[in-house]
Amino acid sequence: MDYDGTDFSGFQKQPGRRTVQGEIEFVLERLFGEPIRVIAAGRTDAGVHATGQVISFRTHGTIPVERICPAMNGMLASDVRAKKAEQVAEDFHARYSAKSRTYAYVILNRRFPSALLERYAWRIEAPLDLEAIRLAAQSLVGTHDFASFGAPDRAGMSTTREVFDCRVSSRREFVIFRIKANAFLRGMARAIVGTLVEIGQERLPVERVAEILAMRDRQAVRVVAPPQGLFLTRVEY
Amino acid sequence: MDYDGTDFSGFQKQPGRRTVQGEIEFVLERLFGEPIRVIAAGRTDAGVHATGQVISFRTHGTIPVERICPAMNGMLASDVRAKKAEQVAEDFHARYSAKSRTYAYVILNRRFPSALLERYAWRIEAPLDLEAIRLAAQSLVGTHDFASFGAPDRAGMSTTREVFDCRVSSRREFVIFRIKANAFLRGMARAIVGTLVEIGQERLPVERVAEILAMRDRQAVRVVAPPQGLFLTRVEY
Repeated sequence: MDYDGTDFSGFQKQPGRRTVQGEIEFVLERLFGEPIRVIAAGRTDAGVHATGQVISFRTHGTIPVERICPAMNGMLASDVRAKKAEQVAEDFHARYSAKSRTYAYVILNRRFPSALLERYAWRIEAPLDLEAIRLAAQSLVGTHDFASFGAPDRAGMSTTREVFDCRVSSRREFVIFRIKANAFLRGMARAIVGTLVEIGQERLPVERVAEILAMRDRQAVRVVAPPQGLFLTRVEY
Repeated sequence: MDYDGTDFSGFQKQPGRRTVQGEIEFVLERLFGEPIRVIAAGRTDAGVHATGQVISFRTHGTIPVERICPAMNGMLASDVRAKKAEQVAEDFHARYSAKSRTYAYVILNRRFPSALLERYAWRIEAPLDLEAIRLAAQSLVGTHDFASFGAPDRAGMSTTREVFDCRVSSRREFVIFRIKANAFLRGMARAIVGTLVEIGQERLPVERVAEILAMRDRQAVRVVAPPQGLFLTRVEY
């Protein structure tokens, strides 16, 4: 699924609010004529976008699988789109079967504001030191307790995650982070980007990232990147 | 100026409609405390975007030039942004002094719809033959009567324009046209893109573009590209 997170209160269904889950379930229930519960690979926050979200659901319905996406897109608002549907094994679970998630974070690194990009990027005026960011990012790769960078679904659950890759690249006036992990804590991608931006602005020394990681304390992260620059781009199974 | 054309009825002021000119004049009149008439390099249609629009206006006001953009951006809606202001010679005219305009046209060339890009691109499912498009585009370069591709401001005015460059490139799932001309007739950029897309889809032979040009008849163009893929990117003086 693709969605523009701007006008949603996040993925997860909440009474009285427009959510991605709420919209998708509403449409699927009408298509299949039965109650449907949707499970997502990543429950993105309010304002966060997706170009590669994966959802799963069970149905007794008999719509041919190749008709599901066109039928959904015919009913969904234009800021959510179904790209591909396939039938899966009974035990497939969009969330628990996922081996990795990849998020991209887009920074518009220029002085002047943009009418077109500020729904999809975090604008930062001063140049960023990408080499310092790259060095600092290396201390996040691997299996660590990321308690400083995010919260588990429920208090007491594990905050250990494995980050496979954390890289930054620049192209013209954009700086783009790509973070791939087995799974993410709530707020983790944005806390990582916020902290690495502080490194890139020389407000924190490079070694501080490893120190923050070791603290296992959510108060340790000072800057959380705003949601509109974040995109869930890929889920692997 | 940058703007997202989605929610505007085009650049040019029209009573009872939200237009870019209307919004900018409203803001400038409040800032300077006097009636202000804005002139633009290119009067973009409804739904067309800009990343490099240039406007000029005269004022007796005394706001320092470096304060004008921040003051405008503080009052403008987030889909219009002022990037840079400078004082110019008395005879400067954003429209008549311009030596060239460059438009970009973005095609999302893939099967699946997008929740994020369809306000900013024309989605075409089938692959396009870029070599055929490049060949056909060459017949548009130079000084020609473009009457088949657009209308002058007022009936009877010249429809001759000089196209300096018309190129197409592809990157991942995008196909991007860039057309640079001394000036454009109304609808000209979109009629050129629509016709070249027909060439790329092999619905028209390559040589048909030169024939359409020679016809000098607006009925000759069958396909006009939709506005949301078009961006005014640059104006040179």
